Amino acid sequence: MATETTGETAEEPTPGCPDDLAYDVFARDCPSRDALRHITDRWGSLTLGALLDGTFRFNELRRRVAGVSEKMLAQTLHALERDGLVHRTAQQTNPPRVDYALTPLGDQIARQLRTLIALVEDRMPQVMQAREEYDAERTAG
Amino acid sequence: MATETTGETAEEPTPGCPDDLAYDVFARDCPSRDALRHITDRWGSLTLGALLDGTFRFNELRRRVAGVSEKMLAQTLHALERDGLVHRTAQQTNPPRVDYALTPLGDQIARQLRTLIALVEDRMPQVMQAREEYDAERTAG
Repeated sequence: MATETTGETAEEPTPGCPDDLAYDVFARDCPSRDALRHITDRWGSLTLGALLDGTFRFNELRRRVAGVSEKMLAQTLHALERDGLVHRTAQQTNPPRVDYALTPLGDQIARQLRTLIALVEDRMPQVMQAREEYDAERTAG
Repeated sequence: MATETTGETAEEPTPGCPDDLAYDVFARDCPSRDALRHITDRWGSLTLGALLDGTFRFNELRRRVAGVSEKMLAQTLHALERDGLVHRTAQQTNPPRVDYALTPLGDQIARQLRTLIALVEDRMPQVMQAREEYDAERTAG
């Protein structure tokens, strides 16, 4: 994260990105922003986390990622497949069977994401206490 | 991430969450999902990443997080403050000065997030190649 440059480039074309390899999520229009969003958004993060447990068919994934709609899961898998993080395999069975699995790149990124998710889950008691205190101040005030 | 239980609980109330400390982002309605989204969404992730570099005033943060609107940055900071990740300090100067900084909890989580962001930035050449190949197949097909 070349944050030291972003203060100056906020309102300008973002040098080096996406034209060369200096990808910087702080740079407006850098494609790394899209990739990060696909990885970390509401359903992308849960889909990648679920696929760390193995290969799943679409409906298996839907059950695993509780609450996701068919449409949103399809969109999520499409974006992750296009970014090279998820591999889709269609088998010529009857009925045809489609499996989804992480690519090696997707596995690397999903493991790092899982570390973040585990930390957030572990710290939730502190987060819940902070929310209570915050809301109590607002109602008191 | 107690993923082994979520396949079964997808359509049911999520046992243990949020009623006790078994927070699980895979559990529908678990508040850890909101917290994770505040941390990883488009502007939350960049705001936390920027605050790793120090304390900022609102407009300094806006320049740092290139492309964020005033409204979205305000909403983002509000959610992160309520979750106990960002501390807001108003100084009685004239004009009054408001500073934003990470809390110790926010710092822990932002460091983990930065590791993920750095990995994604580092792997962007692979992601861009995957996108090219994916799009080329679609246009060819």
